[in-house]
Amino acid sequence: MNDSKSLRPQDPKTLRFAIIVAGGSGTRMGADRPKQFLELLGEPVLLHTLRRFAEPTLGVQELVLVLPPDQFSTWEQLCRQHQVQIPHAVVAGGATRWASVRNGLAHLPAPEGVVAVHDGVRPLTPTRVIEATFEAAYNHGAAVAAVVPKDSVRGLNQQGSYALNRARLRLVQTPQCFSLDLLRRAYQLPELTTFTDDASVVEDLHPIHLVEGDYRNLKITTPEDMLVAEAILRAQQLTP
Amino acid sequence: MNDSKSLRPQDPKTLRFAIIVAGGSGTRMGADRPKQFLELLGEPVLLHTLRRFAEPTLGVQELVLVLPPDQFSTWEQLCRQHQVQIPHAVVAGGATRWASVRNGLAHLPAPEGVVAVHDGVRPLTPTRVIEATFEAAYNHGAAVAAVVPKDSVRGLNQQGSYALNRARLRLVQTPQCFSLDLLRRAYQLPELTTFTDDASVVEDLHPIHLVEGDYRNLKITTPEDMLVAEAILRAQQLTP
Repeated sequence: MNDSKSLRPQDPKTLRFAIIVAGGSGTRMGADRPKQFLELLGEPVLLHTLRRFAEPTLGVQELVLVLPPDQFSTWEQLCRQHQVQIPHAVVAGGATRWASVRNGLAHLPAPEGVVAVHDGVRPLTPTRVIEATFEAAYNHGAAVAAVVPKDSVRGLNQQGSYALNRARLRLVQTPQCFSLDLLRRAYQLPELTTFTDDASVVEDLHPIHLVEGDYRNLKITTPEDMLVAEAILRAQQLTP
Repeated sequence: MNDSKSLRPQDPKTLRFAIIVAGGSGTRMGADRPKQFLELLGEPVLLHTLRRFAEPTLGVQELVLVLPPDQFSTWEQLCRQHQVQIPHAVVAGGATRWASVRNGLAHLPAPEGVVAVHDGVRPLTPTRVIEATFEAAYNHGAAVAAVVPKDSVRGLNQQGSYALNRARLRLVQTPQCFSLDLLRRAYQLPELTTFTDDASVVEDLHPIHLVEGDYRNLKITTPEDMLVAEAILRAQQLTP
């Protein structure tokens, strides 16, 4: 990682950090363990995700993993078992996603730079998408990966439903990248029940720039998603 | 199919029809043949789709397949090769999806009943979803299968983008089912460029009822989708 880092300009605003948030308890999956620990082609989902952000060409300075405290020992054991060499900090999550990201953010000492917030259960994000989102956040302050819906979209109203123009809509993924200063200011404001992601936390302070995401950038939420993720991962290994 | 049909009431309004629309030329897939003819676990995508609607418990009276005329001979050859026993009519598609559905509709002689319109490249639709959509169309006149977006959703505006409440949005799939009379009336009106599916064709005449779809009800549009579809199909075969 040091080699590629030295290729990057020394301006502290270009420093890159990543917070990976893994809060799932696994109950929705009907599995015996949280979905971030389920095995995808022989390795835990979360290890795949971590490896995406440790990709040397991205030049991420520090990786912070936010986990529920009762999952610390499982993760330590998995790291030993899989001989994980990726340096990363482990920080205790909070009661909500918002609280978890805030805890991860508090762990970062640097005053400047760009930070990516990413779902621990999105293990398939292409490097291209991470790089583009970091770059856009550097240029615009706040940037999230998003894709146009493949299906027609309808809104609900009292009469039933009405057609929406899907070309004017985006399905939002992660990473969501922000200037560190902006994200810190947003997380000093009180938590709202309308927060669904970091873009919604930040948007009252700053416009959100959208970056082309990837349909393969799956968030694992159901047992079928594990099979789908394995199929996509196999395809990526064939044609990286 | 006759056995299960005799279990259904003799009211002609309960007659069921299905129009399967396969217009793809395959250029977006980068494949050597249209995506509806690509093989999924050894059988063409379109044969999987056809089989879903031929499921005896659904009691579909007549199946109409709409295909570009230059694909008729390929389909005939595939039917021979795979010894397809499912009775179905083949009708020539038009220049747009709207024109294709209209041609399929013109082929149905019955004055009454309920008709499903379905994408030829959605080969994974669970029987439960097809049955529920037929039933809802019988009760409400117009019904489409749809799911809540899994991701956060943003709308575009001149300033950038803004958060939408995804609980008030639905991603629309097929089947889309209608009383035959209603769909005929809708297709007598002129074609609009805003038509993206049959719900948008019908909605000026009649409210659209939404039925719980299924996240596995994939529309095949990219090469990765074929791998994903195979993974889902294998899982369905294990636990139908």
